[in-house]
Amino acid sequence: MGAVTRWEPNASGRLQLAALELYSERGYDQTTVSEIARRAGLTERTFFRYFADKREVLFYGAGMLQDRLVQGIDDAAAQLAPLDAIGAALEAAAGPVEEIRDFSRQRQAIIAANPELQERELIKLATLGEALAEALRRRGVADTAAKLAAEAGMAVFKVAFQRWACGTGEESLAEIIRQSLAEMKAVATGG
Amino acid sequence: MGAVTRWEPNASGRLQLAALELYSERGYDQTTVSEIARRAGLTERTFFRYFADKREVLFYGAGMLQDRLVQGIDDAAAQLAPLDAIGAALEAAAGPVEEIRDFSRQRQAIIAANPELQERELIKLATLGEALAEALRRRGVADTAAKLAAEAGMAVFKVAFQRWACGTGEESLAEIIRQSLAEMKAVATGG
Repeated sequence: MGAVTRWEPNASGRLQLAALELYSERGYDQTTVSEIARRAGLTERTFFRYFADKREVLFYGAGMLQDRLVQGIDDAAAQLAPLDAIGAALEAAAGPVEEIRDFSRQRQAIIAANPELQERELIKLATLGEALAEALRRRGVADTAAKLAAEAGMAVFKVAFQRWACGTGEESLAEIIRQSLAEMKAVATGG
Repeated sequence: MGAVTRWEPNASGRLQLAALELYSERGYDQTTVSEIARRAGLTERTFFRYFADKREVLFYGAGMLQDRLVQGIDDAAAQLAPLDAIGAALEAAAGPVEEIRDFSRQRQAIIAANPELQERELIKLATLGEALAEALRRRGVADTAAKLAAEAGMAVFKVAFQRWACGTGEESLAEIIRQSLAEMKAVATGG
Protein backbone atom coordinates (compact mmCIF):
# COMPACT_ATOMS: atom_id res chain seq x y z
CA MET A 1 0.00 0.00 0.00
CA GLY A 2 3.04 2.28 0.21
CA ALA A 3 4.61 4.30 -2.60
CA VAL A 4 6.72 1.36 -3.73
CA THR A 5 5.89 0.26 -7.29
CA ARG A 6 6.56 -3.39 -7.93
CA TRP A 7 7.24 -4.85 -11.33
CA GLU A 8 4.56 -7.41 -12.16
CA PRO A 9 5.27 -10.06 -14.79
CA ASN A 10 3.22 -9.27 -17.91
CA ALA A 11 0.95 -6.90 -16.00
CA SER A 12 -0.26 -5.15 -19.17
CA GLY A 13 -1.25 -8.45 -20.79
CA ARG A 14 -3.11 -9.61 -17.68
CA LEU A 15 -4.95 -6.28 -17.47
CA GLN A 16 -5.91 -6.46 -21.15
CA LEU A 17 -7.29 -9.97 -20.76
CA ALA A 18 -9.16 -9.06 -17.57
CA ALA A 19 -10.66 -5.96 -19.23
CA LEU A 20 -11.77 -7.93 -22.26
CA GLU A 21 -13.41 -10.59 -20.09
CA LEU A 22 -15.31 -7.99 -18.10
CA TYR A 23 -16.34 -5.94 -21.15
CA SER A 24 -17.66 -9.15 -22.74
CA GLU A 25 -19.42 -10.37 -19.61
CA ARG A 26 -21.12 -7.22 -18.34
CA GLY A 27 -20.53 -4.59 -21.04
CA TYR A 28 -17.95 -1.86 -21.50
CA ASP A 29 -19.96 0.90 -19.81
CA GLN A 30 -20.69 -1.23 -16.76
CA THR A 31 -17.03 -2.04 -16.06
CA THR A 32 -14.72 0.05 -13.85
CA VAL A 33 -10.93 0.26 -13.73
CA SER A 34 -11.08 -0.99 -10.14
CA GLU A 35 -12.87 -4.16 -11.28
CA ILE A 36 -10.38 -4.74 -14.08
CA ALA A 37 -7.44 -4.45 -11.69
CA ARG A 38 -9.09 -6.79 -9.19
CA ARG A 39 -9.84 -9.42 -11.86
CA ALA A 40 -6.18 -9.26 -12.97
CA GLY A 41 -5.00 -9.57 -9.36
CA LEU A 42 -3.31 -6.17 -9.60
CA THR A 43 -3.82 -2.68 -8.21
CA GLU A 44 -5.43 0.36 -9.85
CA ARG A 45 -2.05 2.04 -9.53
CA THR A 46 -0.56 -0.65 -11.75
CA PHE A 47 -3.40 -0.23 -14.24
CA PHE A 48 -2.68 3.47 -14.61
CA ARG A 49 1.01 2.77 -15.11
CA TYR A 50 0.07 1.22 -18.49
CA PHE A 51 -3.22 2.79 -19.57
CA ALA A 52 -4.66 6.30 -19.38
CA ASP A 53 -8.21 4.95 -18.94
CA LYS A 54 -10.37 1.90 -19.53
CA ARG A 55 -10.79 2.78 -23.21
CA GLU A 56 -7.06 2.74 -23.92
CA VAL A 57 -6.78 -0.91 -22.82
CA LEU A 58 -8.46 -1.78 -26.12
CA PHE A 59 -6.05 0.31 -28.20
CA TYR A 60 -2.77 -0.59 -26.54
CA GLY A 61 -1.67 -2.69 -29.51
CA ALA A 62 -2.43 -0.03 -32.15
CA GLY A 63 0.78 1.94 -31.61
CA MET A 64 2.88 -1.22 -31.82
CA LEU A 65 1.13 -2.30 -35.02
CA GLN A 66 1.77 1.12 -36.54
CA ASP A 67 5.47 0.96 -35.68
CA ARG A 68 5.72 -2.52 -37.22
CA LEU A 69 3.95 -1.51 -40.43
CA VAL A 70 6.05 1.64 -40.89
CA GLN A 71 9.19 -0.44 -40.28
CA GLY A 72 7.91 -3.00 -42.79
CA ILE A 73 7.51 -0.32 -45.46
CA ASP A 74 10.98 1.07 -44.71
CA ASP A 75 12.38 -2.46 -45.04
CA ALA A 76 10.49 -3.37 -48.23
CA ALA A 77 12.61 -3.91 -51.35
CA ALA A 78 13.20 -0.59 -53.14
CA GLN A 79 11.80 -1.81 -56.45
CA LEU A 80 8.38 -2.72 -54.97
CA ALA A 81 5.43 -0.59 -56.13
CA PRO A 82 3.76 1.43 -53.32
CA LEU A 83 0.82 -0.91 -52.74
CA ASP A 84 3.11 -3.95 -52.82
CA ALA A 85 5.38 -2.35 -50.24
CA ILE A 86 2.35 -1.99 -47.97
CA GLY A 87 1.34 -5.57 -48.75
CA ALA A 88 4.80 -6.78 -47.69
CA ALA A 89 4.58 -4.76 -44.48
CA LEU A 90 1.09 -6.11 -43.70
CA GLU A 91 2.24 -9.69 -44.20
CA ALA A 92 5.30 -9.13 -42.02
CA ALA A 93 3.12 -7.69 -39.25
CA ALA A 94 0.58 -10.51 -39.45
CA GLY A 95 2.61 -12.99 -37.39
CA PRO A 96 2.21 -11.42 -33.93
CA VAL A 97 -1.46 -10.62 -34.62
CA GLU A 98 -2.01 -14.27 -35.57
CA GLU A 99 -1.34 -15.31 -31.97
CA ILE A 100 -4.15 -13.23 -30.50
CA ARG A 101 -7.06 -14.22 -32.71
CA ASP A 102 -9.57 -14.85 -29.88
CA PHE A 103 -8.55 -11.59 -28.25
CA SER A 104 -8.95 -9.73 -31.57
CA ARG A 105 -12.32 -11.25 -32.25
CA GLN A 106 -13.68 -10.39 -28.79
CA ARG A 107 -12.20 -6.90 -29.09
CA GLN A 108 -13.99 -6.35 -32.41
CA ALA A 109 -17.33 -7.39 -30.88
CA ILE A 110 -16.90 -4.99 -27.95
CA ILE A 111 -15.97 -2.08 -30.24
CA ALA A 112 -18.84 -2.83 -32.63
CA ALA A 113 -21.30 -2.50 -29.73
CA ASN A 114 -20.13 0.96 -28.60
CA PRO A 115 -20.21 4.17 -30.72
CA GLU A 116 -17.55 5.88 -28.59
CA LEU A 117 -15.16 2.98 -29.18
CA GLN A 118 -15.98 2.92 -32.88
CA GLU A 119 -14.99 6.60 -33.10
CA ARG A 120 -11.73 5.84 -31.37
CA GLU A 121 -11.08 2.94 -33.76
CA LEU A 122 -11.74 5.17 -36.78
CA ILE A 123 -9.28 7.76 -35.47
CA LYS A 124 -6.62 5.11 -34.86
CA LEU A 125 -7.11 3.76 -38.37
CA ALA A 126 -6.93 7.26 -39.90
CA THR A 127 -3.70 7.92 -37.98
CA LEU A 128 -2.32 4.61 -39.19
CA GLY A 129 -3.22 5.49 -42.78
CA GLU A 130 -1.37 8.80 -42.49
CA ALA A 131 1.70 7.04 -41.09
CA LEU A 132 1.69 4.61 -44.03
CA ALA A 133 1.42 7.46 -46.55
CA GLU A 134 4.31 9.24 -44.81
CA ALA A 135 6.44 6.09 -44.99
CA LEU A 136 5.73 5.82 -48.72
CA ARG A 137 6.70 9.46 -49.26
CA ARG A 138 10.02 8.66 -47.58
CA ARG A 139 10.51 6.04 -50.33
CA GLY A 140 10.09 8.81 -52.92
CA VAL A 141 6.44 8.12 -53.77
CA ALA A 142 4.62 11.30 -54.87
CA ASP A 143 2.07 12.73 -52.43
CA THR A 144 -1.18 11.76 -54.16
CA ALA A 145 0.03 8.27 -55.08
CA ALA A 146 1.22 7.80 -51.48
CA LYS A 147 -2.19 8.79 -50.09
CA LEU A 148 -4.09 6.58 -52.53
CA ALA A 149 -1.84 3.57 -51.97
CA ALA A 150 -2.05 4.04 -48.18
CA GLU A 151 -5.87 4.14 -48.30
CA ALA A 152 -6.00 1.12 -50.60
CA GLY A 153 -3.60 -0.70 -48.27
CA MET A 154 -5.71 0.17 -45.25
CA ALA A 155 -8.79 -1.14 -47.07
CA VAL A 156 -6.98 -4.42 -47.73
CA PHE A 157 -5.97 -4.61 -44.07
CA LYS A 158 -9.49 -3.89 -42.75
CA VAL A 159 -11.18 -6.39 -45.08
CA ALA A 160 -8.55 -9.08 -44.44
CA PHE A 161 -8.56 -8.58 -40.68
CA GLN A 162 -12.34 -8.79 -40.50
CA ARG A 163 -12.43 -11.94 -42.65
CA TRP A 164 -9.71 -13.53 -40.53
CA ALA A 165 -11.24 -12.55 -37.17
CA CYS A 166 -14.66 -13.89 -38.18
CA GLY A 167 -13.36 -16.94 -40.04
CA THR A 168 -12.76 -20.54 -39.02
CA GLY A 169 -9.03 -20.05 -38.49
CA GLU A 170 -7.99 -22.46 -41.23
CA GLU A 171 -6.41 -19.71 -43.32
CA SER A 172 -3.65 -17.59 -41.83
CA LEU A 173 -3.99 -13.81 -41.67
CA ALA A 174 -0.96 -13.47 -43.97
CA GLU A 175 -2.67 -15.70 -46.55
CA ILE A 176 -5.92 -13.71 -46.35
CA ILE A 177 -3.94 -10.46 -46.73
CA ARG A 178 -2.32 -11.84 -49.92
CA GLN A 179 -5.76 -12.79 -51.29
CA SER A 180 -7.32 -9.44 -50.39
CA LEU A 181 -4.45 -7.52 -51.98
CA ALA A 182 -4.89 -9.52 -55.19
CA GLU A 183 -8.62 -8.85 -55.04
CA MET A 184 -8.02 -5.11 -54.56
CA LYS A 185 -5.86 -5.10 -57.69
CA ALA A 186 -8.56 -6.97 -59.62
CA VAL A 187 -11.26 -4.57 -58.41
CA ALA A 188 -9.18 -1.51 -59.27
CA THR A 189 -8.49 -2.76 -62.77
CA GLY A 190 -12.11 -3.60 -63.41
CA GLY A 191 -11.82 -7.34 -62.86
CA MET B 1 -42.34 35.30 -30.32
CA GLY B 2 -45.53 33.16 -30.33
CA ALA B 3 -45.81 29.52 -31.32
CA VAL B 4 -46.27 30.39 -34.98
CA THR B 5 -43.46 29.00 -37.16
CA ARG B 6 -42.87 31.04 -40.28
CA TRP B 7 -41.26 29.66 -43.41
CA GLU B 8 -38.06 31.59 -44.11
CA PRO B 9 -36.62 31.59 -47.64
CA ASN B 10 -33.48 29.42 -47.63
CA ALA B 11 -33.21 29.56 -43.85
CA SER B 12 -30.94 26.50 -43.69
CA GLY B 13 -28.51 28.00 -46.21
CA ARG B 14 -28.38 31.33 -44.36
CA LEU B 15 -27.77 29.54 -41.06
CA GLN B 16 -24.99 27.45 -42.57
CA LEU B 17 -23.25 30.52 -43.98
CA ALA B 18 -23.65 32.45 -40.71
CA ALA B 19 -22.26 29.50 -38.73
CA LEU B 20 -19.28 29.13 -41.02
CA GLU B 21 -18.49 32.85 -40.79
CA LEU B 22 -18.60 32.78 -37.00
CA TYR B 23 -16.61 29.53 -36.69
CA SER B 24 -13.94 31.06 -38.94
CA GLU B 25 -13.92 34.43 -37.18
CA ARG B 26 -13.93 33.42 -33.52
CA GLY B 27 -13.57 29.63 -33.50
CA TYR B 28 -16.05 26.77 -33.30
CA ASP B 29 -15.94 26.39 -29.52
CA GLN B 30 -16.50 30.11 -28.94
CA THR B 31 -19.67 30.29 -31.06
CA THR B 32 -23.22 29.72 -29.74
CA VAL B 33 -26.41 28.77 -31.56
CA SER B 34 -27.91 32.07 -30.43
CA GLU B 35 -25.12 33.99 -32.18
CA ILE B 36 -25.51 31.96 -35.37
CA ALA B 37 -29.25 32.65 -35.48
CA ARG B 38 -28.70 36.37 -34.85
CA ARG B 39 -26.06 36.63 -37.60
CA ALA B 40 -28.47 34.92 -40.01
CA GLY B 41 -31.30 37.23 -38.95
CA LEU B 42 -33.34 34.28 -37.73
CA THR B 43 -34.46 32.83 -34.40
CA GLU B 44 -32.97 29.96 -32.40
CA ARG B 45 -36.28 28.21 -32.90
CA THR B 46 -35.69 28.29 -36.65
CA PHE B 47 -32.13 27.01 -36.16
CA PHE B 48 -33.38 23.96 -34.28
CA ARG B 49 -35.96 23.25 -36.97
CA TYR B 50 -33.04 22.34 -39.27
CA PHE B 51 -30.14 21.28 -37.05
CA ALA B 52 -29.87 19.24 -33.84
CA ASP B 53 -26.92 21.33 -32.63
CA LYS B 54 -24.15 23.63 -33.82
CA ARG B 55 -22.04 20.67 -34.93
CA GLU B 56 -24.68 19.33 -37.32
CA VAL B 57 -24.65 22.60 -39.31
CA LEU B 58 -21.33 21.44 -40.73
CA PHE B 59 -22.65 17.99 -41.72
CA TYR B 60 -26.00 18.97 -43.18
CA GLY B 61 -24.82 18.25 -46.74
CA ALA B 62 -23.39 14.79 -45.95
CA GLY B 63 -26.76 13.01 -46.07
CA MET B 64 -27.64 14.62 -49.38
CA LEU B 65 -24.26 13.68 -50.85
CA GLN B 66 -24.75 10.07 -49.72
CA ASP B 67 -28.19 9.90 -51.35
CA ARG B 68 -26.77 11.31 -54.60
CA LEU B 69 -23.86 8.86 -54.66
CA VAL B 70 -26.03 5.84 -53.94
CA GLN B 71 -28.44 6.98 -56.67
CA GLY B 72 -25.46 7.44 -59.00
CA ILE B 73 -24.34 3.85 -58.40
CA ASP B 74 -27.87 2.56 -58.94
CA ASP B 75 -28.03 4.53 -62.21
CA ALA B 76 -24.57 3.49 -63.49
CA ALA B 77 -24.51 1.29 -66.60
CA ALA B 78 -24.80 -2.39 -65.66
CA GLN B 79 -21.60 -3.39 -67.46
CA LEU B 80 -19.41 -0.95 -65.46
CA ALA B 81 -16.89 -2.54 -63.10
CA PRO B 82 -17.50 -1.73 -59.37
CA LEU B 83 -14.86 1.00 -59.07
CA ASP B 84 -15.97 2.58 -62.36
CA ALA B 85 -19.58 2.62 -61.14
CA ILE B 86 -18.41 4.58 -58.09
CA GLY B 87 -16.35 6.84 -60.35
CA ALA B 88 -19.44 7.60 -62.44
CA ALA B 89 -21.45 8.34 -59.28
CA LEU B 90 -18.72 10.64 -57.92
CA GLU B 91 -18.55 12.58 -61.17
CA ALA B 92 -22.34 12.91 -61.30
CA ALA B 93 -22.39 14.23 -57.72
CA ALA B 94 -19.55 16.69 -58.33
CA GLY B 95 -21.73 19.36 -59.98
CA PRO B 96 -23.62 20.61 -56.91
CA VAL B 97 -20.44 20.46 -54.79
CA GLU B 98 -18.64 22.55 -57.42
CA GLU B 99 -20.88 25.51 -56.56
CA ILE B 100 -19.85 25.66 -52.91
CA ARG B 101 -16.07 25.61 -53.20
CA ASP B 102 -15.41 28.50 -50.79
CA PHE B 103 -17.86 27.02 -48.31
CA SER B 104 -16.18 23.59 -48.62
CA ARG B 105 -12.73 25.02 -48.17
CA GLN B 106 -13.67 27.00 -45.05
CA ARG B 107 -15.51 23.98 -43.69
CA GLN B 108 -12.40 21.80 -44.11
CA ALA B 109 -10.27 24.33 -42.22
CA ILE B 110 -12.75 24.47 -39.33
CA ILE B 111 -12.94 20.68 -39.09
CA ALA B 112 -9.15 20.29 -39.30
CA ALA B 113 -8.79 22.56 -36.26
CA ASN B 114 -11.13 20.57 -34.00
CA PRO B 115 -10.68 16.91 -32.94
CA GLU B 116 -14.37 16.47 -32.10
CA LEU B 117 -15.33 17.60 -35.60
CA GLN B 118 -12.67 15.36 -37.15
CA GLU B 119 -14.21 12.38 -35.34
CA ARG B 120 -17.62 13.30 -36.69
CA GLU B 121 -16.19 13.63 -40.21
CA LEU B 122 -14.55 10.20 -39.97
CA ILE B 123 -17.85 8.66 -38.86
CA LYS B 124 -19.74 10.32 -41.71
CA LEU B 125 -17.14 9.07 -44.21
CA ALA B 126 -17.29 5.53 -42.78
CA THR B 127 -21.09 5.58 -43.03
CA LEU B 128 -20.82 6.82 -46.62
CA GLY B 129 -18.36 4.01 -47.44
CA GLU B 130 -20.80 1.41 -46.06
CA ALA B 131 -23.62 2.88 -48.13
CA LEU B 132 -21.50 2.66 -51.30
CA ALA B 133 -20.59 -0.98 -50.57
CA GLU B 134 -24.28 -1.77 -50.01
CA ALA B 135 -25.19 -0.12 -53.33
CA LEU B 136 -22.55 -2.25 -55.09
CA ARG B 137 -23.90 -5.43 -53.48
CA ARG B 138 -27.32 -4.53 -54.89
CA ARG B 139 -25.65 -4.59 -58.34
CA GLY B 140 -24.58 -8.17 -57.65
CA VAL B 141 -20.98 -7.41 -56.62
CA ALA B 142 -19.64 -9.97 -54.11
CA ASP B 143 -19.21 -8.80 -50.52
CA THR B 144 -15.41 -8.49 -50.34
CA ALA B 145 -15.11 -6.88 -53.78
CA ALA B 146 -17.88 -4.43 -52.84
CA LYS B 147 -16.07 -3.42 -49.63
CA LEU B 148 -12.71 -3.03 -51.37
CA ALA B 149 -14.16 -1.04 -54.27
CA ALA B 150 -16.11 1.19 -51.86
CA GLU B 151 -12.97 1.91 -49.82
CA ALA B 152 -10.93 2.58 -52.96
CA GLY B 153 -13.70 4.85 -54.24
CA MET B 154 -13.80 6.74 -50.93
CA ALA B 155 -10.02 7.19 -51.12
CA VAL B 156 -10.39 8.65 -54.62
CA PHE B 157 -13.11 10.99 -53.36
CA LYS B 158 -11.11 12.17 -50.32
CA VAL B 159 -7.93 12.80 -52.29
CA ALA B 160 -9.77 14.52 -55.16
CA PHE B 161 -11.90 16.65 -52.83
CA GLN B 162 -8.87 17.81 -50.86
CA ARG B 163 -6.93 18.64 -54.03
CA TRP B 164 -9.90 20.55 -55.43
CA ALA B 165 -10.69 22.44 -52.20
CA CYS B 166 -7.05 23.52 -51.80
CA GLY B 167 -6.41 24.14 -55.51
CA THR B 168 -6.63 27.24 -57.70
CA GLY B 169 -10.06 26.38 -59.05
CA GLU B 170 -8.91 26.02 -62.64
CA GLU B 171 -9.70 22.32 -62.74
CA SER B 172 -13.23 21.14 -62.03
CA LEU B 173 -13.89 18.64 -59.25
CA ALA B 174 -15.20 16.17 -61.84
CA GLU B 175 -11.94 16.44 -63.77
CA ILE B 176 -9.84 15.92 -60.62
CA ILE B 177 -11.99 12.90 -59.71
CA ARG B 178 -11.29 11.38 -63.14
CA GLN B 179 -7.54 11.95 -62.70
CA SER B 180 -7.52 10.53 -59.16
CA LEU B 181 -9.46 7.45 -60.24
CA ALA B 182 -6.92 6.84 -63.01
CA GLU B 183 -4.12 7.32 -60.50
CA MET B 184 -5.74 4.85 -58.09
CA LYS B 185 -5.84 2.27 -60.87
CA ALA B 186 -2.18 2.94 -61.68
CA VAL B 187 -1.17 2.67 -58.00
CA ALA B 188 -3.13 -0.55 -57.51
CA THR B 189 -1.58 -2.18 -60.55
CA GLY B 190 1.92 -1.15 -59.54
CA GLY B 191 2.25 1.80 -61.91
